[in-house]
Amino acid sequence: MFPKNAWYVACTPDEITDKPLGRKICGESLVLYRGPDGQATALEDFCPHRGAPLSLGKVENGKLTCGYHGLEMGCDGKTVAMPGQRVRGFPAIRAYPAIERYGFIWVWPGDAALADEAKLHHLEWAENPAWAYGGGLFHIHCDYRLMVDNLMDLSHETYVHASSIGQKEIDETPTKTVVNGDEVITSRHMENISAPPFWRMALRGNGLADDVPVDRWQICRFTPPSHVMIEVGVAHAGKGGYDAAAEHKAASIVVDFITPETETSIWYFWGMARNFKPDDAELTATIRAGQHTIFSEDLQMLELQQRNLLAHPERKLLMLNIDSGGVQSRKVIDRLLAAEAPQQVAA
Amino acid sequence: MFPKNAWYVACTPDEITDKPLGRKICGESLVLYRGPDGQATALEDFCPHRGAPLSLGKVENGKLTCGYHGLEMGCDGKTVAMPGQRVRGFPAIRAYPAIERYGFIWVWPGDAALADEAKLHHLEWAENPAWAYGGGLFHIHCDYRLMVDNLMDLSHETYVHASSIGQKEIDETPTKTVVNGDEVITSRHMENISAPPFWRMALRGNGLADDVPVDRWQICRFTPPSHVMIEVGVAHAGKGGYDAAAEHKAASIVVDFITPETETSIWYFWGMARNFKPDDAELTATIRAGQHTIFSEDLQMLELQQRNLLAHPERKLLMLNIDSGGVQSRKVIDRLLAAEAPQQVAA
Amino acid sequence: MFPKNAWYVACTPDEITDKPLGRKICGESLVLYRGPDGQATALEDFCPHRGAPLSLGKVENGKLTCGYHGLEMGCDGKTVAMPGQRVRGFPAIRAYPAIERYGFIWVWPGDAALADEAKLHHLEWAENPAWAYGGGLFHIHCDYRLMVDNLMDLSHETYVHASSIGQKEIDETPTKTVVNGDEVITSRHMENISAPPFWRMALRGNGLADDVPVDRWQICRFTPPSHVMIEVGVAHAGKGGYDAAAEHKAASIVVDFITPETETSIWYFWGMARNFKPDDAELTATIRAGQHTIFSEDLQMLELQQRNLLAHPERKLLMLNIDSGGVQSRKVIDRLLAAEAPQQVAA
Repeated sequence: MFPKNAWYVACTPDEITDKPLGRKICGESLVLYRGPDGQATALEDFCPHRGAPLSLGKVENGKLTCGYHGLEMGCDGKTVAMPGQRVRGFPAIRAYPAIERYGFIWVWPGDAALADEAKLHHLEWAENPAWAYGGGLFHIHCDYRLMVDNLMDLSHETYVHASSIGQKEIDETPTKTVVNGDEVITSRHMENISAPPFWRMALRGNGLADDVPVDRWQICRFTPPSHVMIEVGVAHAGKGGYDAAAEHKAASIVVDFITPETETSIWYFWGMARNFKPDDAELTATIRAGQHTIFSEDLQMLELQQRNLLAHPERKLLMLNIDSGGVQSRKVIDRLLAAEAPQQVAA
Repeated sequence: MFPKNAWYVACTPDEITDKPLGRKICGESLVLYRGPDGQATALEDFCPHRGAPLSLGKVENGKLTCGYHGLEMGCDGKTVAMPGQRVRGFPAIRAYPAIERYGFIWVWPGDAALADEAKLHHLEWAENPAWAYGGGLFHIHCDYRLMVDNLMDLSHETYVHASSIGQKEIDETPTKTVVNGDEVITSRHMENISAPPFWRMALRGNGLADDVPVDRWQICRFTPPSHVMIEVGVAHAGKGGYDAAAEHKAASIVVDFITPETETSIWYFWGMARNFKPDDAELTATIRAGQHTIFSEDLQMLELQQRNLLAHPERKLLMLNIDSGGVQSRKVIDRLLAAEAPQQVAA
Repeated sequence: MFPKNAWYVACTPDEITDKPLGRKICGESLVLYRGPDGQATALEDFCPHRGAPLSLGKVENGKLTCGYHGLEMGCDGKTVAMPGQRVRGFPAIRAYPAIERYGFIWVWPGDAALADEAKLHHLEWAENPAWAYGGGLFHIHCDYRLMVDNLMDLSHETYVHASSIGQKEIDETPTKTVVNGDEVITSRHMENISAPPFWRMALRGNGLADDVPVDRWQICRFTPPSHVMIEVGVAHAGKGGYDAAAEHKAASIVVDFITPETETSIWYFWGMARNFKPDDAELTATIRAGQHTIFSEDLQMLELQQRNLLAHPERKLLMLNIDSGGVQSRKVIDRLLAAEAPQQVAA
């Protein structure tokens, strides 16, 4: 169960440069490509002639041609032409609202009539040149909500990421969870601690001493349908922590777009945005490589957790204080699902 | 659903030279080997003693011995001997009619009482020394009828095989479909065109100029249960096309024996027979390698088309003029299935 | 269907030296590790907090800590501690009786109240320094009873292991099967025969001539739930066979602990114990390597036999004289299953 009337990240622009891309999103098999004006386009990956996947076709000058018998498909899901055929009566395939913004291609897998670009969150870091971004994509076999839980409870860093960003003070410092409408915010502030290896690297990357006590913060923001932006950082201790001036800290935003593929698998777009040394491409690469290693550590845990939960559907899991970010996020999701139900039935 | 009272290609002789071969044909698990007189033999791949697969056994002097406990199985499915046992009361396993002809081993997976060698099509190219043949085998995850459709509508060559045998004139030239009893014939004749790369190679192979205009033809013949023989060729333009004298053309027969394994998988025996330079083994190898490359291009398309169709069983596909060869072939198949139904129930 | 109130081999000690081990036994997902006193411990592989597999966690000083959020689990299945949490109300997970003995970790997957160490068979060869042991582990996709059948009917050696321990005299010599309560014994004695390659190697290993006639014996002992110990050996002919003095023979016990994983897969712990030259580590390695090669030959046969049986559940297999060891063993198993049924329902 996932909200379908929402914008999800479907892919990054580099995935549709030369060939169309076939990808399943929220249970829908899509073909993604750029239309004649370069616009991101998402259609059903199903040729109305013989059911061939359009994603095996070709795109030339923004025209998508089926790779089986040459049917030319329009960006609206209506067949434009086919050699030797009159195509007016061909059944249309479904066209999904799609937009390109913030360095991602977004699709709306639900009711197209409800799609509204204004509903896409503003992502300051993606447009402001003071910021740099690097990221990647994982395919993981778990319910998207297990990943939301994971990201809204960073106490797992102490155990899953012990050698990079974990430290015992995370466990020892309580969090505070606030719900603002559809947004859920869980925050933790640690003071006068030693920075773990990943953050020492970031301090050095920003030209700061890495061997002095720091204040560290983690502010996780869930927004529907399943995005989690996490403000993270360290400042030299006593300089104001989260509010310290830029010259005393290394701060960034962990970016997590979790796109359901099926009920038990996800496309996980992860990355990090930072507003220091934005032009230092080498630093971007170093941070990205470090994050890749760290985030890889979650995969096996999530997939085997999923397998355990499928084997024991009757068991109620504990909802501790540390879980409140995930619990509140699931409440928001449940509210959206309930609101969609009649439409889903109608569709 | 496949007709079972029919001859299907089960394997080629080289597959049963030293060891028995286990292969599923039309949903039946068979063991194939040569009996005492060298005769092709097909039995259930199931030892009546403990259910072991006989295909893991040994054949010596035409005697098939189970590799588990040494039961010796006769070509009629009756146990001949077993160390220390009286075997008279052992239940028989099923023996399938099998014949070797035309360079293939054929089996009849249906009612043995109806098996009739006379029902095997005559294949002139396989017996006449004026012809040479080369071919291969693919295992593909698709319904056998999707491959029949594929071969009865060669307009896909323009897209799937664009760099070898495809050319835009295929699309531009209408086909004609004729039904003769159980045979379906779809033909296309293109005049005064440029030969595509594969056919330029074939012209050179036959000692003919490859840079002059040609006439090209494609005559697809479906016969039950699921064989498609395609007469293809090019002649120097204006020499009579299909009817041109041998010294002006390069012509051959594309051979396609499509043997269902399950409802959604096939053993696809493909090849090419030609009646020029039949003794030129190097040319046979060159043609075979080219065909292997070309025919490989269909695999992914067919398998993903199959997956799309399984996901949308409710959708009706289009039946255009180019599809009429496949549509008529399926009608023949449906007629055979209807005729078999009572027997299938009885069995 | 497998008896659950029984001791099964779960793993060998070397499998739980540094990290906990996740393994499914009789349908139960277990985590195995050593507790604070070094004692073998088996728990459900399911953290009560979020369902994470505990086997991805860490063991330090005998304390098992969940690798996701640091929950510390006790050897009794009750949570001991978790950072920042009161754990008294946490639901317990299941703890399975476990003991370490004879070089193996044994678990009791059924009703813990019925577990009794006294029910573990005595294994003389595992404790007496006059014996040496070497073995290994295979994971095989077959019902555990197919492996019992395999081991209680060694006539398959002639065919499956033709080049090492098989010989035609096995087939030619009848067996005798005796049932003593829950124990089933099938024995075969062959006299004045030529030793096959494996046994010639063993004779040489024991400093005996390998080119003289021998007497050979095989005494298979099934005991519940699914253990098969096989006394095997050869003696120089005329020296008393099985009862010959030690200096005339090479004898050993083939050790087979067959632990069901699921209804159609097993953990197969195989090995060989011998009471000659127990300190010759090189000989142990040579025998172990030979047995590894030989026992590997059964895998494909058993897995394809299983597949055949699943495809034909309606077929009754033959029960010949050679099968009586397996037939009687299955009767013992059936009796145990019937006795357990009410408890299984209650659980």
